[in-house]
Amino acid sequence: MRYGEIAALLHGGDYNVEQWLDRPDILAEDIRLMKKAGVNVVTLGVFAWATYEPREGEFHFEWLDKIMNTLWENGIYVILATPSGGKPPWMIQKYPEIMRVDKNRIRHLYGERENHCNSNLLYRQKVLGMDRLLAQRYANHPAVILWHISNEMYGICHCRDCQRNFRIWLKEKYQTIENLNREYWSCFWSHHYNDFQEIESPAPHGETAVHGLALDYQRFYSDLSMDFLQGEIDAVKAYNPHIPVTTNLFHFNCGIDIAKLCRMLAIVSWDSYPRWHCGTNPLSEWETALEAAFGFDFCRSQKGTPFLLMESTPSTTNNAAVCKLKRPGMHMLSAMEAIASGADSVQYFQWRKSRGAYEKFHGAVISHNGSEETRVYRDVCAVGKRLDELSALKGAKTKSSVALLYDWNNMRALEEQKSLRKTNREFDEIIKEHYEALVRNYVSVDIIDQNMEFDGYGLIAAPMLYMFLPGTSEKIRRFVEQGGIFVLTFYSGLVNENDLAFECMPPYSLNDVFGLKVEETDVLMEGEYNTFLYCGERYKATTYFDLAQENGASVLSAYEREFYAGMPAITQNHFGKGWGYYIACRPEQKFLYQFYRNTLRQAGIPAIIDSEYVEDVMVKERVQNGEKYVFLMNFATTARVIQGIELAGYETKILRSQI
Amino acid sequence: MRYGEIAALLHGGDYNVEQWLDRPDILAEDIRLMKKAGVNVVTLGVFAWATYEPREGEFHFEWLDKIMNTLWENGIYVILATPSGGKPPWMIQKYPEIMRVDKNRIRHLYGERENHCNSNLLYRQKVLGMDRLLAQRYANHPAVILWHISNEMYGICHCRDCQRNFRIWLKEKYQTIENLNREYWSCFWSHHYNDFQEIESPAPHGETAVHGLALDYQRFYSDLSMDFLQGEIDAVKAYNPHIPVTTNLFHFNCGIDIAKLCRMLAIVSWDSYPRWHCGTNPLSEWETALEAAFGFDFCRSQKGTPFLLMESTPSTTNNAAVCKLKRPGMHMLSAMEAIASGADSVQYFQWRKSRGAYEKFHGAVISHNGSEETRVYRDVCAVGKRLDELSALKGAKTKSSVALLYDWNNMRALEEQKSLRKTNREFDEIIKEHYEALVRNYVSVDIIDQNMEFDGYGLIAAPMLYMFLPGTSEKIRRFVEQGGIFVLTFYSGLVNENDLAFECMPPYSLNDVFGLKVEETDVLMEGEYNTFLYCGERYKATTYFDLAQENGASVLSAYEREFYAGMPAITQNHFGKGWGYYIACRPEQKFLYQFYRNTLRQAGIPAIIDSEYVEDVMVKERVQNGEKYVFLMNFATTARVIQGIELAGYETKILRSQI
Amino acid sequence: MRYGEIAALLHGGDYNVEQWLDRPDILAEDIRLMKKAGVNVVTLGVFAWATYEPREGEFHFEWLDKIMNTLWENGIYVILATPSGGKPPWMIQKYPEIMRVDKNRIRHLYGERENHCNSNLLYRQKVLGMDRLLAQRYANHPAVILWHISNEMYGICHCRDCQRNFRIWLKEKYQTIENLNREYWSCFWSHHYNDFQEIESPAPHGETAVHGLALDYQRFYSDLSMDFLQGEIDAVKAYNPHIPVTTNLFHFNCGIDIAKLCRMLAIVSWDSYPRWHCGTNPLSEWETALEAAFGFDFCRSQKGTPFLLMESTPSTTNNAAVCKLKRPGMHMLSAMEAIASGADSVQYFQWRKSRGAYEKFHGAVISHNGSEETRVYRDVCAVGKRLDELSALKGAKTKSSVALLYDWNNMRALEEQKSLRKTNREFDEIIKEHYEALVRNYVSVDIIDQNMEFDGYGLIAAPMLYMFLPGTSEKIRRFVEQGGIFVLTFYSGLVNENDLAFECMPPYSLNDVFGLKVEETDVLMEGEYNTFLYCGERYKATTYFDLAQENGASVLSAYEREFYAGMPAITQNHFGKGWGYYIACRPEQKFLYQFYRNTLRQAGIPAIIDSEYVEDVMVKERVQNGEKYVFLMNFATTARVIQGIELAGYETKILRSQI
Repeated sequence: MRYGEIAALLHGGDYNVEQWLDRPDILAEDIRLMKKAGVNVVTLGVFAWATYEPREGEFHFEWLDKIMNTLWENGIYVILATPSGGKPPWMIQKYPEIMRVDKNRIRHLYGERENHCNSNLLYRQKVLGMDRLLAQRYANHPAVILWHISNEMYGICHCRDCQRNFRIWLKEKYQTIENLNREYWSCFWSHHYNDFQEIESPAPHGETAVHGLALDYQRFYSDLSMDFLQGEIDAVKAYNPHIPVTTNLFHFNCGIDIAKLCRMLAIVSWDSYPRWHCGTNPLSEWETALEAAFGFDFCRSQKGTPFLLMESTPSTTNNAAVCKLKRPGMHMLSAMEAIASGADSVQYFQWRKSRGAYEKFHGAVISHNGSEETRVYRDVCAVGKRLDELSALKGAKTKSSVALLYDWNNMRALEEQKSLRKTNREFDEIIKEHYEALVRNYVSVDIIDQNMEFDGYGLIAAPMLYMFLPGTSEKIRRFVEQGGIFVLTFYSGLVNENDLAFECMPPYSLNDVFGLKVEETDVLMEGEYNTFLYCGERYKATTYFDLAQENGASVLSAYEREFYAGMPAITQNHFGKGWGYYIACRPEQKFLYQFYRNTLRQAGIPAIIDSEYVEDVMVKERVQNGEKYVFLMNFATTARVIQGIELAGYETKILRSQI
Repeated sequence: MRYGEIAALLHGGDYNVEQWLDRPDILAEDIRLMKKAGVNVVTLGVFAWATYEPREGEFHFEWLDKIMNTLWENGIYVILATPSGGKPPWMIQKYPEIMRVDKNRIRHLYGERENHCNSNLLYRQKVLGMDRLLAQRYANHPAVILWHISNEMYGICHCRDCQRNFRIWLKEKYQTIENLNREYWSCFWSHHYNDFQEIESPAPHGETAVHGLALDYQRFYSDLSMDFLQGEIDAVKAYNPHIPVTTNLFHFNCGIDIAKLCRMLAIVSWDSYPRWHCGTNPLSEWETALEAAFGFDFCRSQKGTPFLLMESTPSTTNNAAVCKLKRPGMHMLSAMEAIASGADSVQYFQWRKSRGAYEKFHGAVISHNGSEETRVYRDVCAVGKRLDELSALKGAKTKSSVALLYDWNNMRALEEQKSLRKTNREFDEIIKEHYEALVRNYVSVDIIDQNMEFDGYGLIAAPMLYMFLPGTSEKIRRFVEQGGIFVLTFYSGLVNENDLAFECMPPYSLNDVFGLKVEETDVLMEGEYNTFLYCGERYKATTYFDLAQENGASVLSAYEREFYAGMPAITQNHFGKGWGYYIACRPEQKFLYQFYRNTLRQAGIPAIIDSEYVEDVMVKERVQNGEKYVFLMNFATTARVIQGIELAGYETKILRSQI
Repeated sequence: MRYGEIAALLHGGDYNVEQWLDRPDILAEDIRLMKKAGVNVVTLGVFAWATYEPREGEFHFEWLDKIMNTLWENGIYVILATPSGGKPPWMIQKYPEIMRVDKNRIRHLYGERENHCNSNLLYRQKVLGMDRLLAQRYANHPAVILWHISNEMYGICHCRDCQRNFRIWLKEKYQTIENLNREYWSCFWSHHYNDFQEIESPAPHGETAVHGLALDYQRFYSDLSMDFLQGEIDAVKAYNPHIPVTTNLFHFNCGIDIAKLCRMLAIVSWDSYPRWHCGTNPLSEWETALEAAFGFDFCRSQKGTPFLLMESTPSTTNNAAVCKLKRPGMHMLSAMEAIASGADSVQYFQWRKSRGAYEKFHGAVISHNGSEETRVYRDVCAVGKRLDELSALKGAKTKSSVALLYDWNNMRALEEQKSLRKTNREFDEIIKEHYEALVRNYVSVDIIDQNMEFDGYGLIAAPMLYMFLPGTSEKIRRFVEQGGIFVLTFYSGLVNENDLAFECMPPYSLNDVFGLKVEETDVLMEGEYNTFLYCGERYKATTYFDLAQENGASVLSAYEREFYAGMPAITQNHFGKGWGYYIACRPEQKFLYQFYRNTLRQAGIPAIIDSEYVEDVMVKERVQNGEKYVFLMNFATTARVIQGIELAGYETKILRSQI
């Protein structure tokens, strides 16, 4: 069966069957419990290398043949993993050079997972050899619907091989060492290089101060990781080009530009572990729900098609600050949130709790007690049933007229650069303040980066877009010219892609589009703030304040305090057929909500539902075959009413209608 | 003189005479001041190696002969140390491999103390050689009453020799690698070992995630340290089997299972440095007194006989967060607390302040000024006088019908395992909450581990007994069957001795004894709580909450809040002739006090004194030769009345009566 | 031109012209903007090594010839740096041993700056070779007025060469290993050395507990750094002995005894980056101003002559916790504070912002936009204009009758020693409490160390003078005997120069001068305090409390609380013609203000201006050629009146009068 042909949402999870090979009683019971819970897919082999190849060159796949056949006979599909995320001890005993070297230049000893060097050719050979054996044997097995390459790819190596590859990468990027010197501004502190050979990756006891270098090493390693991934993809694809591939992403700061990586995949997958009930206001789940939705919206936006929720827990993780149990109703609600946001699956890590090792207490479907008389198992069964009822959603898309620019290069650059505040540069928080304001306005939001297309959107918001990649300013200019609304904020357009400052007042080359020039940026202390009036209301702003010279923009609001009282806080500039808005400071949420309410109206972008924001209620939409599914989700424990529709605590209502 | 024959409590301390060999004036003055202060014992040679053997193979003991004779002539006994806690620089200059290797695999350079490798055979040879020279010369000296082996044994090495010894230890424990694989659940993350040779001790840049391995390394090193100790014991015992041995323990988390170690010793010794007057409520010393008493009760319980308070300070330590001076009266009170708890001595580190190096400002009896006209010296004299009056107490025991289970293996396992909360798993705090409730009920409490006998106790409390060692569940079952009261709490009986989860609902194999099955454990955030009613009062509980299915127990209290309102919070189960109590959450102190008040009454265990808890007053008891000594100690600065007896601030009254 | 002949205050900054060699447009514009801003000096070549010598042995100075000539033609002087603070990559590629080894014994990789080993002979050769080339070419260039050796010297190396040099240094200091053993009290923990070869510098994985050793390593490395500096001085002086030398100091804890270093310099230079507007009370700048003034007063006191403010920013640094912009008026005010305190210059790092690398956002005169239409540039022009008007001040001195003892050896010793409190020993805070009390009394204060002359002062305050260097007690005795007022506080005179405790009650050998003997020192917790009465007022004291036996002193105030109520808190003792005051605790600021008000009156030391302290107003004085300049500086944003003179917010008024 091919993934695309399945007319159902997927329900299932990682099934680490190699842990139970000596327990046929458990394997039989698992099949019974899976069917009862409406499980139609399991992921096999994520960490099975040591079982496939217990000793170098000695292979065992019979056990997998058997389980795969049993699953197929019982109507359960298989997502087959390549096992490169975990290595057997014998391999490192014999080839210790496979292990990663940290930035302190110390090589890892054997242990844990996902800590090999992506430059290591021997490990690549081993991995590709294993992948080919798996693909040869299973690529055409009817149960297999998808390849799951490696697992939660993560981290960076600094070994000699990586240094060598980095220099090759640099040479390809800069061509000459003089180009690199200019971009790194290496005259500073006398760091002018004569040769690519002189360059080392950053180290706590070496270079930490050249931001261009630090960024390039992250980019190099991101590219190297993708190259490793591509090798695995090619290996398995060779045996059956019709089985699509994915890899499970899990973090925006994993050492890889995951938006770039998504372009290599047929299907995007995501592991989501929100810390439910652990917010600062424990009665409200809104904050946690937003955090989860942000990840989902990102995944959906990358290809404009549904993604898979590859991992989640029906209970609790085992490594949170506080491992609180999911309250009754939350498992259903959080599963629905994923589906509402564009997931075509709800999958768990893992089916059955391991008896030992690191994650033995991580919430699985079946616990150590093996019982089906548990709250968790009943919750999973209920989700299984509802997913079955929602089969028609499989493949349904979401059309967004609004995009939020969340850019890996910009994010990393802001982290590295020195200015504003020593710690806590809060880029993520600021992005999410804008995201929340848009979500509260009940529009669908795509999360894109500078490399993606701007066409087709009516409004794009780009908070704190410090770094402009090549072409970005031109894309913004054209977007506005052609009628779009572009929202830029303080500290935008300061540096080029190598963190080299532009020789101008920011935002670079867009002074006419936004109608202002930023002379300085002030920072306030914790507890300090400024205020401004907007549409008759007074709002607070904190932390960052651009001090801009007007260059034609209409000043919608001016600062009321500090020595820059009277200077623009919020401006609007008509340019071409569109509008450039500039938010020169970091305003409170209720301003952002009102601001986007007004600009969305100006852009003619309708909300999914015609309602002011109802506290704790999230609204999402999916569309397919002329039908629209509107999800109304109440993250409060008490009832809420939206547009006359009452939602009980933690309830999801799905409104289905013709478009 | 043999220690056992001495009919007096000991008073004295570490006398680092090698620091003053060029000062005969000071040595003479010391003898005078010791006698005036009622000092009857000093410990010699703790760090004297460099003076014994200033160059390899060149030995000097004449100075020790002389001082030992002088002491003996002046009626002062000697505890003779082996100097293995500190090595001379020449030794490491020549044999750097003696130094410990940290878990980051970096070997120590010369410096500090107690940082050798316990696997190193050369160091063992050197130590045993030195011990034999000392024993040969002094084991039959009349002044010597006790051997003091090494000093505050501490810490863990990860060198190659230790890795090799660890593998031998593992092989002996598990016999086959498959047994180890099963217990470590090494299929997880593909960590299946083929051979013991593949195993390395945990490392920050290697394995941190296999809890069974981490535990085993701690056990291995604990055993190795004890083996090192045994070597020294055998060496000195060979020259006079009648001189008993001890070593000074000082910490429950020193890298050694000290309860196990105590079984090797004739006499248990303890170093106690409570942070007096530095509590959160500086007017009350109760908390600090409890902390100190816990250590004393532990020491007394290990052999059921008196122990030695080997180190303490009459003034202040030099390395506390705040080095506050002991207030007037506190030195007497804290000395009496030790005696009341079963100590047969009050000893100091050290007699005279060093003029230089790390501890020169650590409070000693005689300060740099050498004066006897100091508050500290007067306080020490007063203690000497009172100890002399209490000579009849020498050897008096304490009979406890109550035991608290505080288990090294369980403690370490809770620290390593992943679940509940990321930091601050608070096992120690929880144990001490139960300890305090028992102490407030004025009963004697033994502190025991899972390996010790349960017979003879009427009530045993085992808070958070996460790990059941082999035989534990059977011992608990038998204890209850035969009429005992056993108190178990949340998160108990989850894993076996290798941190492998039992395939059941906890507590493992005791669902009938306690009449319940635990399905899940919830964790609340800081500030959140639940409540329950018990005997008409409402109590709060925080942090941890077992969600249990009833299995026959009587529910004494049910939760009042959260989605598990109505589920059991406190249960009672009649089993055999006894009772199993289960406290499913972490209740506030006043509940525990009341709960133990009731269960002690049910068990027919009388208090030492028939009184409700009087704020700040601790009561302890020792018994000998048909006489009972009841210590009433007031840790408040103001007067307290207990059973009609008034205690002034910081006063200790001792009631002596026939049994 | 020689520096001494210039009849103007200097205004300018670091001009890193090597960053703009491919931009003649910018170089031309710079000259225009400098002249417009009243810039009369720039510092060249601080980090130009890679431009001077891009490949080993290939030298380029033509560019420097050209810019230097252009500057000279435009009336701008040059301070020429030696480039030893930054090394080109090729050098470390070829000679990695030049890099520093950290205390963890790991050698730095190439990167950053000021991280070479000062023992490395090869680097010394390279540096001296470069210095000679520079001196040969430019020492007689008319533009050059001063040598600026290296840059912000900083840090410590632990390589083998340094270990070897350390042992030589130790041998020279102690002559025999026995002398060292006695001073280090190495019997403790059996650390008795047989040979200097056995000694290693402190290491986190080696020795951390021998305070004498730790201190000696800091002294050794300070001496080594000065030796390195002397080499550079000699090299450049050889070509023109008339050009004076300086190096820019920047921190009291940079690994060098900077008071000692100042004795090597013709002119003291200082880099000052106060965190304006970022205090706990952001409306008041007083605290920040005090911090800045302390550095200035230190610099002026070292030679009794004006110093250079070598680096500052007209805007904001880029690496503060919060990089707040200087508010309007603050740049002028902070520049005036430097001049008032004895600076003969206001210089910036840097003239023009770099486009890339670590400090690209550090506030410079000209920003990336190159515009002169900025607030910052206008502020710099205003300062330029005022400095020009104040030319007559060049060379004016300040006569202080009051000195504050702030001693590098004492500071380091207090940091290393173990006692009182584990963290936060607050020596710096305590020193500055006394400094503030003196500044509020409007007297000029010199900041001196134990090695400097006491003669000529009327009052010397030495807070927490824990360590007495050889001769200090005699100097204090003679100072008091001859009529001076000496103020000593708690925890003074405990140890000799090697942290070896004196065999007495402190203060060592001064019990008669101060009339008391200190028996113990108590420490209180955060929030606890004691009180005492002084001149009818009740004051609080916190943290540290000496418990002293009277020995003839008059007790001005006694403690009112704690068990030491009635013991002396403040004493006065007539000795010879003078007075010894002892402050046994740490009193609040308003006591110190009153105490010094009274003692200054007693000493007959007049204030600069006859006024009680006016909140936020600082007063400084400079004198030259029979003229006195009194600076009245208001650090408040609102107006203040002092002696009838009104100062607007942030205003500086300068009163010029005949003496």
